[in-house]
Amino acid sequence: MQELIPSLVRKSDSKIVLLVLDGLGGVRTSERASELLDADTPNLDRMAAEGMSGVHTVVAPGVTPGSGAGHMALFGYDPVKYLLGRGALSAAGVAFDLRPGDVAARVNFCTLDADGRVIDRRAGRIPTEENMRLCKLLRENVKMEGDVEFFLESERDHRGLLVLRGMGLSADLKDTDPGVVGITPNPPTARGTEAAGTAILLERFLDQVRLILAGEQANFLLLRGFDTLRPIEPFALRYLLKARGIASYPMYRGLSKIVGMDVPPETAGWEESVEDMKAHWNDYDFFFLHQKPTDSAGEDGDFARKIAAIEQVDRTIPEILAMNPGVVCVTGDHATPAAFQRHSWQPVPFLMWGENVGVDLVDRFDEEAARLGGFGHQFGKDLMSFMLASTMRLATFGA
Amino acid sequence: MQELIPSLVRKSDSKIVLLVLDGLGGVRTSERASELLDADTPNLDRMAAEGMSGVHTVVAPGVTPGSGAGHMALFGYDPVKYLLGRGALSAAGVAFDLRPGDVAARVNFCTLDADGRVIDRRAGRIPTEENMRLCKLLRENVKMEGDVEFFLESERDHRGLLVLRGMGLSADLKDTDPGVVGITPNPPTARGTEAAGTAILLERFLDQVRLILAGEQANFLLLRGFDTLRPIEPFALRYLLKARGIASYPMYRGLSKIVGMDVPPETAGWEESVEDMKAHWNDYDFFFLHQKPTDSAGEDGDFARKIAAIEQVDRTIPEILAMNPGVVCVTGDHATPAAFQRHSWQPVPFLMWGENVGVDLVDRFDEEAARLGGFGHQFGKDLMSFMLASTMRLATFGA
Repeated sequence: MQELIPSLVRKSDSKIVLLVLDGLGGVRTSERASELLDADTPNLDRMAAEGMSGVHTVVAPGVTPGSGAGHMALFGYDPVKYLLGRGALSAAGVAFDLRPGDVAARVNFCTLDADGRVIDRRAGRIPTEENMRLCKLLRENVKMEGDVEFFLESERDHRGLLVLRGMGLSADLKDTDPGVVGITPNPPTARGTEAAGTAILLERFLDQVRLILAGEQANFLLLRGFDTLRPIEPFALRYLLKARGIASYPMYRGLSKIVGMDVPPETAGWEESVEDMKAHWNDYDFFFLHQKPTDSAGEDGDFARKIAAIEQVDRTIPEILAMNPGVVCVTGDHATPAAFQRHSWQPVPFLMWGENVGVDLVDRFDEEAARLGGFGHQFGKDLMSFMLASTMRLATFGA
Repeated sequence: MQELIPSLVRKSDSKIVLLVLDGLGGVRTSERASELLDADTPNLDRMAAEGMSGVHTVVAPGVTPGSGAGHMALFGYDPVKYLLGRGALSAAGVAFDLRPGDVAARVNFCTLDADGRVIDRRAGRIPTEENMRLCKLLRENVKMEGDVEFFLESERDHRGLLVLRGMGLSADLKDTDPGVVGITPNPPTARGTEAAGTAILLERFLDQVRLILAGEQANFLLLRGFDTLRPIEPFALRYLLKARGIASYPMYRGLSKIVGMDVPPETAGWEESVEDMKAHWNDYDFFFLHQKPTDSAGEDGDFARKIAAIEQVDRTIPEILAMNPGVVCVTGDHATPAAFQRHSWQPVPFLMWGENVGVDLVDRFDEEAARLGGFGHQFGKDLMSFMLASTMRLATFGA
């Protein structure tokens, strides 16, 4: 059965701008207020005063979203139904041409001790150049069996992508990344019998990796998020929107590509992303801009840096509103409270600003004000419906 | 699988009164407050103070409900599952005895220019008498082919109902109403092969209509909402309620009939609807009273007239409460903000008043107060559950 919202969509000239501050949501603790409560955001506050606020549960109550799930929700795709593996995300993020049947996995270079126990899951966050050198070394020296090809691509820092290509492969595999330090990586393990052969191939692959990287700081690979390519209805068909996804990190450029957005080369940071939008303002209906440092700072437990990343976005708001968008939505894909140093399950504040949005009594942009907003408490996947409705893109339902 | 609420229903003597102010919901804009915020409603405010408030999303977030969908939700039927076409609604509205297999469509008399392009989709809103004259003219002069009968019934103003009756007809047809002026009407077009014959019949029907109406101000018919009769579990079976639907507009009397309510002849307006309820107070368990002018005024962008229509209902509240109902629910079937001049997607405030409803801290009836109410944010289809629960009609679920 067709989904309700796509069945109601019609065209409009009014532009939609979605500003995602990654991990925006915070939480007041007994120690201190959230980052948004403490940040100085005169422009976002003005948008809140002139528009409507709310909070959204990104996936489901109590559920902490990963980056893929959080963004799929904001793009209007039910994140449970359209679950993306990290492998498929990483592939898109490095512009790898993933094909049907390929098995993709997220790679972390890591450091093992002499007993084979993980002592650093990120190998000291090796520089990207070192990552590239090691990937090249492995590509030139690992020999895969049978008719299976492998592709090993560098992402940033310690991260990479592994793709296996061949007949009869299966992604139904457990992560080899144990998720903690002090124990050995999990051996490649099939969840079902269908993936037994792929698990054996991977085991032999990893045996060679261990020998080739011996003596390096980054002396092994952790694999997670085994995944294959699944078809997803793109923005152009689903919403009749020509969309541009502007981000400085591969993952988010990859997410944009997965839903069919045009994706420019990675930007140097937020201001350059805004410049890119400006330069292409007349060519698109929908712009997604992604700010990563809010999340990175939250994960590092750095309140001040997360606040600075929020304020960086705030300073660009006047020039964004000056472009006369039909609606602007500002929100996050999940909470990353600095107090927790990780993604968390808390609802995330959002605001919408635009001609047909309406006005509520909220005049600040933070978690506590947003709870009293006119949108009330929504699910993340429904924010896209409000963006479409506010730009007059949804026909009346029923007679 | 049986729905949950009907499986729990039991009988009670306590009476339910549902007051629907059509298009009640409004929205604060940068220009002004909503109609409900501005209206002087001492009696509704008293009900809010003595009862509990909330807001409801009528169909789904961001979705603008049509009249049928909005009412089906308020009657407790999932409006997506029980989607009604406008043809079936119109048939019920003029008390036409629609039978299984009949194909019904909503008719607009319209005006075409010399090149056959629509210049007025409502033919200048011709008077009902003119509509009746033209329907009679067409009934007497159009000859249908084969064994198909047609029925053409006047509604109000420029609106009417067309029903085709015969073997093998299908309602799987696109609207001939193009929805805009300046282009020619769409030819009758089947969506699937099953309706191909019906499309040809309609084309020949419309060719005759064009000739017969030549020279009239209303010189053609636009058809939309092709539909057949679908069985819907009536109130008496679903809720064990003997229900009376009191309205001054055909559409809403039709909706009442579709769910099995008794429907008196159309009332002259709100006060007469209240009088009708009073006169039949002892004969029913459930009364649905419909106030149309709130919506009409909203569609006309007339704040003052919408406020007056709200205040008209407010003035009758004391006599309604004096009848000692078990619960009174006051709400709308969707928003029609005068600021937008159309149905819109915003949640609609509601209040419940009665012995078993409970009391929250809200003491005004408007969008902003209702958001803080004890019911919080609900879906439209669940309001009926609260009416049933508050009159002790729902058994405990589970052992």
